[in-house]
Amino acid sequence: MSLTIALDAMGGDGAPEIVVDGADLARVRHPNVSFIFYGDEARLAPLVAAHSKLAAISTIQHTDIVVSGEEKPSRALRKGRGSSMGLAIDAVKKGDAQGGVSAGNTGALMAMAKLALRTLPGISRPAIATMVPTDKSECVMLDLGANIQCDERNLVEFAIMGEVFSRTVLGLAKPTIALLNVGEEDMKGHESVRQAAATLRDIDLPIEFIGFVEGDAVWSGAADVVVTDGFTGNVALKTAEGIVKMYSTFLRNAYKSSPLAMLGYFFSRRALNKMRAKLDPRRYNGAMLVGLNGIVIKSHGGTDAFGFSHAVGVAVDMIEGEFNERISEEFDHIGSFGVPTQNVASS
Amino acid sequence: MSLTIALDAMGGDGAPEIVVDGADLARVRHPNVSFIFYGDEARLAPLVAAHSKLAAISTIQHTDIVVSGEEKPSRALRKGRGSSMGLAIDAVKKGDAQGGVSAGNTGALMAMAKLALRTLPGISRPAIATMVPTDKSECVMLDLGANIQCDERNLVEFAIMGEVFSRTVLGLAKPTIALLNVGEEDMKGHESVRQAAATLRDIDLPIEFIGFVEGDAVWSGAADVVVTDGFTGNVALKTAEGIVKMYSTFLRNAYKSSPLAMLGYFFSRRALNKMRAKLDPRRYNGAMLVGLNGIVIKSHGGTDAFGFSHAVGVAVDMIEGEFNERISEEFDHIGSFGVPTQNVASS
Repeated sequence: MSLTIALDAMGGDGAPEIVVDGADLARVRHPNVSFIFYGDEARLAPLVAAHSKLAAISTIQHTDIVVSGEEKPSRALRKGRGSSMGLAIDAVKKGDAQGGVSAGNTGALMAMAKLALRTLPGISRPAIATMVPTDKSECVMLDLGANIQCDERNLVEFAIMGEVFSRTVLGLAKPTIALLNVGEEDMKGHESVRQAAATLRDIDLPIEFIGFVEGDAVWSGAADVVVTDGFTGNVALKTAEGIVKMYSTFLRNAYKSSPLAMLGYFFSRRALNKMRAKLDPRRYNGAMLVGLNGIVIKSHGGTDAFGFSHAVGVAVDMIEGEFNERISEEFDHIGSFGVPTQNVASS
Repeated sequence: MSLTIALDAMGGDGAPEIVVDGADLARVRHPNVSFIFYGDEARLAPLVAAHSKLAAISTIQHTDIVVSGEEKPSRALRKGRGSSMGLAIDAVKKGDAQGGVSAGNTGALMAMAKLALRTLPGISRPAIATMVPTDKSECVMLDLGANIQCDERNLVEFAIMGEVFSRTVLGLAKPTIALLNVGEEDMKGHESVRQAAATLRDIDLPIEFIGFVEGDAVWSGAADVVVTDGFTGNVALKTAEGIVKMYSTFLRNAYKSSPLAMLGYFFSRRALNKMRAKLDPRRYNGAMLVGLNGIVIKSHGGTDAFGFSHAVGVAVDMIEGEFNERISEEFDHIGSFGVPTQNVASS
């Protein structure tokens, strides 16, 4: 199946260079993909031309407008339609591309994608999902910040979307789903999380809901899908990033602390580099905006070409796994469930 | 100043052995402290007698009743008064001891301590606080699970209590305080966290409120005190524990992966052990139940004697730092502030 991916060529700290280089790396892994770059043609043309194989499968659509990293979502909605980010989303909407990737401002991307693409039938709120490493393999976690407060229905929708992702994109036969909570007992946590658990136990879908897990269990691989509200999910993910960074700093300082320790590092460095590769955040780059009527991936703003190529890979995997088609089938099947969603504040 | 610490000798996985051994370790660091052990005298007497110096400064108060690790707080309240945990709290209430330490069930301990000791004047809700390591030194974090939902007033109270702890117990001249959020901008987060920020900016106290921090900033030492609701705080702390564990497993596996890597470990092990000591959770053992009219410390249930001795040390430091007296002065000074607290669900 040949695919087209729309790229916001101007989003992120290293744009447009890392976007072009990232696309060239992704091209090798996904030879069926072609690209449309949205952005400053004068800057993009020579960058793309420098990679002859990439140039052969790419087109450039010019725009001067860029949504900045600090832009408020409300402002991005007003002035952003003609921006590199807005045009990439539009390409997905019009079907010119089957998926879009941006390393720009998350809030603006979600707001514009929501407005342009709308949510899939049956879904009240889109969410941001990502894969994280665990002791055993990896885990899909959502929401990571799209919805600051979530009611029961939102959490149940996230659970189903996470399950479908894990099954269709990661290829797990029977992924386990858990709700993040402050304890494993039924009475723990606030009402929305307890009600969501009750609904997931009763729902008419062949899903494997295993109940509540605590923050540490995510990383020991207790579940394949971990569901939480956007506030908690964002804090948990950033905490994880912060701890990995702190640990790495401590480790580096330990190796530098004596000539003997440095010698030890010299002998162990192959094994340590392998471990570092496993925890490399670039390998987990590519947050999915799930629940929208179109595939949109948010790359980390500070990533490099290698990281960006992974975000492109996530888009390709979701398209090829027919993620949105499977989601729609599930929601068609269950129809409406649980209590009607309440109008809670979005971020 | 000579002090007495009341110990729940039957709480925690390794009780009563680790409680007695932990008290003996604490004795060396705090020669001004004597102990009352509450629990099964037949088991305790020989354990205490085995440490002659500890025996000389200890008394044992017998009870057969133990609050189990799985006991619901409501049930602990009904049957727990005569338990080893209940009697230790009672000793603090009656003034027989200046502080109490338990490695038992957190929910039961908080419920019983709240009922027996009541909150300090001006404080609507007690919180659970702990110290965590950062890139630079350490940070006080609260609430870690006592209050699943928090309104503005709760968060402001936690901030003031954290500030007083940092100043009086840790000895920081001007500790910085931050609220945990999903971004640093004013508009981020839900209403309670935004309102708490507004109140902390205006409040008539010489505190150093620096605004919002994200989950990763906690571990880079962005603030001396980080305040959040009990749900988020619990998830963040457990996430941190989970990541450290995962990283350690990966590191161990890396060293075991080849003879050369093992040789490297041999050379680096002194430096690595030093690093491990810095991150040793036992050094941070001792969660403080702050806001109560009495000093009560919760030790991790799975800790060893070394960890338990640290929890005793936290109690001693809080008593000697006159933590509760300083808290009362602050709240006397500010009187009532912000909006009146709402009746939100507690865990």
